Amino acid sequence: MSKPVLHTVLSPKLLKLYDCTDTVVVIIDVFRATSTIATALFNGATRVIPVDSVEKCIAIGTQTKGITAGERDGKVIAGLQYGNSPAEYPESFIKGQTLVLTTTNGTKLLHMALNAGASEVITGSFPNLSAVCDFLLKENKNVLLGCSGWKDKFNLEDTLFAGAVINAVKEHFTIHCDSSLMAEDMYLQHKDDLLSYIRKLTHWHRLEKFGLEKDLEYCCTNDVANVLPRYKNGALIVG
Amino acid sequence: MSKPVLHTVLSPKLLKLYDCTDTVVVIIDVFRATSTIATALFNGATRVIPVDSVEKCIAIGTQTKGITAGERDGKVIAGLQYGNSPAEYPESFIKGQTLVLTTTNGTKLLHMALNAGASEVITGSFPNLSAVCDFLLKENKNVLLGCSGWKDKFNLEDTLFAGAVINAVKEHFTIHCDSSLMAEDMYLQHKDDLLSYIRKLTHWHRLEKFGLEKDLEYCCTNDVANVLPRYKNGALIVG
Repeated sequence: MSKPVLHTVLSPKLLKLYDCTDTVVVIIDVFRATSTIATALFNGATRVIPVDSVEKCIAIGTQTKGITAGERDGKVIAGLQYGNSPAEYPESFIKGQTLVLTTTNGTKLLHMALNAGASEVITGSFPNLSAVCDFLLKENKNVLLGCSGWKDKFNLEDTLFAGAVINAVKEHFTIHCDSSLMAEDMYLQHKDDLLSYIRKLTHWHRLEKFGLEKDLEYCCTNDVANVLPRYKNGALIVG
Repeated sequence: MSKPVLHTVLSPKLLKLYDCTDTVVVIIDVFRATSTIATALFNGATRVIPVDSVEKCIAIGTQTKGITAGERDGKVIAGLQYGNSPAEYPESFIKGQTLVLTTTNGTKLLHMALNAGASEVITGSFPNLSAVCDFLLKENKNVLLGCSGWKDKFNLEDTLFAGAVINAVKEHFTIHCDSSLMAEDMYLQHKDDLLSYIRKLTHWHRLEKFGLEKDLEYCCTNDVANVLPRYKNGALIVG
């Protein structure tokens, strides 16, 4: 039997070049949306509703009695309650709650993948690396690793996570894709110095001035919130 | 004085995210358009006219009394005279001639860059690496390294060439761009085994079945056709 196919998409702008039907799409937004989503669910949130605007965040927050969250430039957005940091969502706070999270890059890609006919959408980041890999192996379907990037530009943190997934699952997939080859190469080159390497990335420079170094290091730590967020009926829940 | 800025664009689909005005855009299509362009000019072609369709190739070929060239799937396209291989254009054949070359990925990106207001468009590949780097250093303007990719998808051979340029010129530019960081990392990781590494790339697998291994190795060899193709009045000429 032939193995399912795995591709890596380096920017939402490139998604249309790939076939999403009958495919598991992994939404990757390491700094910090998909790290925060895994963490909130790991700590007992009932669901995380990703939305792409502040208006929707407030409206759905009211409707669901959920916690509204979102940041711009390292500050909680006016009208919302909390920020995008995984550290804001310990079990004592988030257990049993609905989190309505506004993000830009990750949410956009998630909706694009759904519109393109993905059969399953999950989210991944280093904190739930093993849960993602286990799911992909179990499903045994075609996979698209979708890097959210930054305003449609390529970024390395999402690519490195794609590389970590590829490195873990590659024996079980057919991979003829330069994006995947590059992602795994970059991951292998830097996996042993990941926490120092990420200090070179553009996103690090963008966020470190807001004192988010600890957040960014957490987002690059394997399996500290090892659950699988699956998108069902408009929300991410533990799958 | 602040240094000019250098960015790398990994696919024509991402070009719009970058500002091309007052910028030197380097069109990169290593397998094989920009390698063939450098070679034809190095061997004395008067000019190379890059066109994006077979019809234009024939029409402009007739009009300029030029040699028409283009391949699909490793064969000369019906109605054209020659193929896309740099080996087809030795001095004894091409000197003093106009070459009208139909390519898909590289020509498309070239026209996109012109439409986006690039102040200068040049072409680069390993055979003219030093000429490209020397020009960028001399101009001291903002630079966009434009990878043509394959049908808008990311490819590694163009990225590796971007990395080689970055490695040579980086002290003279401001580079805050994950694409560039990745490109240089990949180049440094593979520069000493480039000719074996390229055997892993998707494009290699696409072309090797047509017996083009020697072509592909040539396209990854530094400075064997070290001229600078500059786009002026609809054609690439030696700059």
